[in-house]
Amino acid sequence: MVPTVEWKDGAVRLLDQSRLPEVVEFLECRDYQTVADAIRTLKVRGAPAIGVTAAMAVALGAQVVNTTNYSSFASAVFKICDELAATRPTAVNLFWAIERMRKKLESLRDQPVSAIKQALIMESQVILEEDVTLCKTMGRHGAELIEDGQTVLTHCNAGSLATAGYGTALGVIRAAWEQGKKIKVIADETRPVLQGARLTAWELMQDQIPVTLITDNMAGTLMRQGKIHLCVVGADRIAANGDVANKIGTYSVAVLAKAHNIPFYVAAPYSTIDLNTKSGEDIPIEQRNPSEVTTIHGSHPVAPKDVPVYNPAFDVTPAELITGIITERGVFKPGELAARFKERDHVR
Amino acid sequence: MVPTVEWKDGAVRLLDQSRLPEVVEFLECRDYQTVADAIRTLKVRGAPAIGVTAAMAVALGAQVVNTTNYSSFASAVFKICDELAATRPTAVNLFWAIERMRKKLESLRDQPVSAIKQALIMESQVILEEDVTLCKTMGRHGAELIEDGQTVLTHCNAGSLATAGYGTALGVIRAAWEQGKKIKVIADETRPVLQGARLTAWELMQDQIPVTLITDNMAGTLMRQGKIHLCVVGADRIAANGDVANKIGTYSVAVLAKAHNIPFYVAAPYSTIDLNTKSGEDIPIEQRNPSEVTTIHGSHPVAPKDVPVYNPAFDVTPAELITGIITERGVFKPGELAARFKERDHVR
Repeated sequence: MVPTVEWKDGAVRLLDQSRLPEVVEFLECRDYQTVADAIRTLKVRGAPAIGVTAAMAVALGAQVVNTTNYSSFASAVFKICDELAATRPTAVNLFWAIERMRKKLESLRDQPVSAIKQALIMESQVILEEDVTLCKTMGRHGAELIEDGQTVLTHCNAGSLATAGYGTALGVIRAAWEQGKKIKVIADETRPVLQGARLTAWELMQDQIPVTLITDNMAGTLMRQGKIHLCVVGADRIAANGDVANKIGTYSVAVLAKAHNIPFYVAAPYSTIDLNTKSGEDIPIEQRNPSEVTTIHGSHPVAPKDVPVYNPAFDVTPAELITGIITERGVFKPGELAARFKERDHVR
Repeated sequence: MVPTVEWKDGAVRLLDQSRLPEVVEFLECRDYQTVADAIRTLKVRGAPAIGVTAAMAVALGAQVVNTTNYSSFASAVFKICDELAATRPTAVNLFWAIERMRKKLESLRDQPVSAIKQALIMESQVILEEDVTLCKTMGRHGAELIEDGQTVLTHCNAGSLATAGYGTALGVIRAAWEQGKKIKVIADETRPVLQGARLTAWELMQDQIPVTLITDNMAGTLMRQGKIHLCVVGADRIAANGDVANKIGTYSVAVLAKAHNIPFYVAAPYSTIDLNTKSGEDIPIEQRNPSEVTTIHGSHPVAPKDVPVYNPAFDVTPAELITGIITERGVFKPGELAARFKERDHVR
């Protein structure tokens, strides 16, 4: 499996997802600003992958802070954290991972700065490894919901490319496939950035899991024809009431699934659940550049140049449309999250 | 207004819609085969426009049939009719227009072939002029359903470009605008061929009617936010029970509209109603080339090259999701079509 992001020779090495599947190219980021820019421009995307990448960027930025004084060091690293946190507003894993790095730093205040620098690299590696492990655990929980012979619809890419490896929604699909279930996948192409066409289709083909690509507007008619048995998508943030922010178009899929009595699952790590966000209404939704809609890949025009465009990157699916939320700790009803995880070690 | 199709200097002159909005270029078709190919390759599209164009192609083909014998002439023209009828399977206006040309020919069996040739050109012009007139009448009926200040969502292009002029769904919008109602339009981009982005947005901008472009998967979230007050779309065929075949994605819009209590209207000429087709299940749905999904404009790849693709050009929206069908004869409930038009002069 191609690594989404790794720490290599003192740099953060990213697979440039904006050029897939035509070009498989890696980006060597030697400073945190280059990583921040990669997050902003979707070279790396997917809530868990963004979290892992940002953690590595904190470690990368910390290495070149030139002081032996803890306070100066911490203050410089916290500035880096703030800058990284401003790259994208919706995915909570970004803030979660940065906050974890910040806490790690603070917990080591009595150690020499050189040791803290090393520990920050280590912590980002732990976050990466945890992400792979929890995706596999999540996959096992979710795979029980898929029966042999079923067809699963997914939207956007919540695959190994959206995580440090294995994937969330695609992790569930991958686990079912590895259990020998003969399943099929329908991938929404997911306009405007086409993560379904470019990434999900590519990733599943690499693993030889049967996938059929459709445009987003075909999902409804396939459901009506009985060709889809369940839906599994990822999440960028899950509010305390179980509302889920995910890639634009997820809400439409959920409404269509409900109208056709098709189960609709969300697969996301526990770190995606933000109990400090009461409901979906409180989740900030990123508006992106109109050129994502009016062009393909920023260059090939598909609409009049000056047409007004609405381009929210995400939408909110209300809890009542969600059959279950698949996490590494089990599968939950959206309504039981708050009560269940009241005691959790929330970092925000 | 740019003419979609016209008879000019003994040729059929088409606006090449496959290259809009980047290139505004006309195609001079000097034989019917070139017109057939233009229909097949979506250089001209939209059910009413296809009908008018096919009628002209019949006239064009008839001109070069080299005989003065009625039977030989008729048999040659009927062969041309059959060839044109095979270009696309779903839009009933195609068959309707061809059948009308065939009937015209038969009605003139006692006249010299040279006179019939002229009459066929005339008949195709009558069909064109009728189309413009009925679109305007339809527009007046439909405009009454739109209130000042409302926002209308439309899917695909049922505009002047889809007809001989003025449009069906966009004719309704145009009429409301001409009545001085300050309305706004949300245009679904309409993957895979992007008729909404390329044609509807372009056409409305030319008329300075406010339009905002969205990807198809954004319609649901806009409806949830209360930003859409009604939907108006065109139709490629309406079955006797009121089921409507239209551009892929129409069904999803209708389900979403229902879920948000938003009226969903279909605007189509009377010739789109096919009482010989009992229900939507009997409407043949054209499957088109996977490259429409895996590339943009046939050249720019957006998905892995060999990915399996599902690419139906149309879907069926069941009558129960349709608030009303706007025709040049008034606005009808889908369920009342059969009873209302039992007596009609059906040509098929």
